[in-house]
Amino acid sequence: LSVIDDLTSELARLPGIGRKTALRLTYHLLKRPPEEIKRLARALEGVADRVHACSRCGNLTENDPCAFCASPRRDASLICVVEEAADIGAIERTGEYRGLYHVLGGRLSPLEGIGPDELNVAALLTRVRTVEQVSQDSALAHAIARVTEVIIATNPSVEGEATATFLQRQLQPLGVRITRLARGIPVGGDLEYVDGVTLAQALSGRREI
Amino acid sequence: LSVIDDLTSELARLPGIGRKTALRLTYHLLKRPPEEIKRLARALEGVADRVHACSRCGNLTENDPCAFCASPRRDASLICVVEEAADIGAIERTGEYRGLYHVLGGRLSPLEGIGPDELNVAALLTRVRTVEQVSQDSALAHAIARVTEVIIATNPSVEGEATATFLQRQLQPLGVRITRLARGIPVGGDLEYVDGVTLAQALSGRREI
Repeated sequence: LSVIDDLTSELARLPGIGRKTALRLTYHLLKRPPEEIKRLARALEGVADRVHACSRCGNLTENDPCAFCASPRRDASLICVVEEAADIGAIERTGEYRGLYHVLGGRLSPLEGIGPDELNVAALLTRVRTVEQVSQDSALAHAIARVTEVIIATNPSVEGEATATFLQRQLQPLGVRITRLARGIPVGGDLEYVDGVTLAQALSGRREI
Repeated sequence: LSVIDDLTSELARLPGIGRKTALRLTYHLLKRPPEEIKRLARALEGVADRVHACSRCGNLTENDPCAFCASPRRDASLICVVEEAADIGAIERTGEYRGLYHVLGGRLSPLEGIGPDELNVAALLTRVRTVEQVSQDSALAHAIARVTEVIIATNPSVEGEATATFLQRQLQPLGVRITRLARGIPVGGDLEYVDGVTLAQALSGRREI
């Protein structure tokens, strides 16, 4: 049954989906009306055909520049640097951030052969350097405004930390303010179960109330 | 980003895949080359366009009759009744069965509104009844041979049991031998952790060595 095997193999390539889960998904799909299976196929094709990286910030988008870079309502003096486009959603959901983004497309990882050249770093430095010159094009005017702060929001992993340190060194000579997300105990967390490193960072970062 | 949201929604409709996993899969796919995404799309379309139920046994197949029903090397006097087409794979992997199959397409479940009419039962009774007349068409000759045994291989769940009992009552008047899969402790299982019902069935089904 070649088309069934085909589909199972393709599904098994997805992360977190093993051979058994792929089979289960295939048989689930086989029980659905063909129209429903085709809707998923079309959604995949739509993404394959129309989604690409924003030429300014690296966010995944159907338009170029992306909705953030093109919006006159975002604060162009702030750039939040994230590892992946998916991280933007997490920050947007807080409703607390009105600046722009920059997607690195990963984090430094010598073991996986990912060095600075594999990440979207040069474009970030260019964005921070490009000032003064104000465009006549109102949609892009804000994007060429001066960047005053870069928030480094890489993941709190060893590689995320190394990436943050690397970015800090690259950005420092440009005279821009560089900040990082605060570390501490998560809301709803239980002191007893917070790991020592996080607790130490929560202590050293304590604030007056 | 409508196409990205589209894909996430479609993926989230799959069983066992929640909103978060769907998002993670979407972003994984977005990082793959478009050609790879399209391969998955094409696999889905292939299945939607070409897979349907075998008109004899209900197995999902690209051809009609399916590979089992059409094979002269399968023993047409044996029919193994399973709930879903996916169950055939499990039985084939044992390498111990050479008969034909019959796929019910589910199990009796009054709570879900699934009665005998929703299952592929009438066709099973017809297959068992249809004897004597031997076709000239060699590919189908075996399929019209006399069925001597029906193995009921529904799942060992409450609904699977009810379905088995129902099938037994329907088949009994046809004078065919009706068997069920043996119950007992699974190979590699630990007596201490086997549930009481299974252990009781293993005891009552004990065999001389």
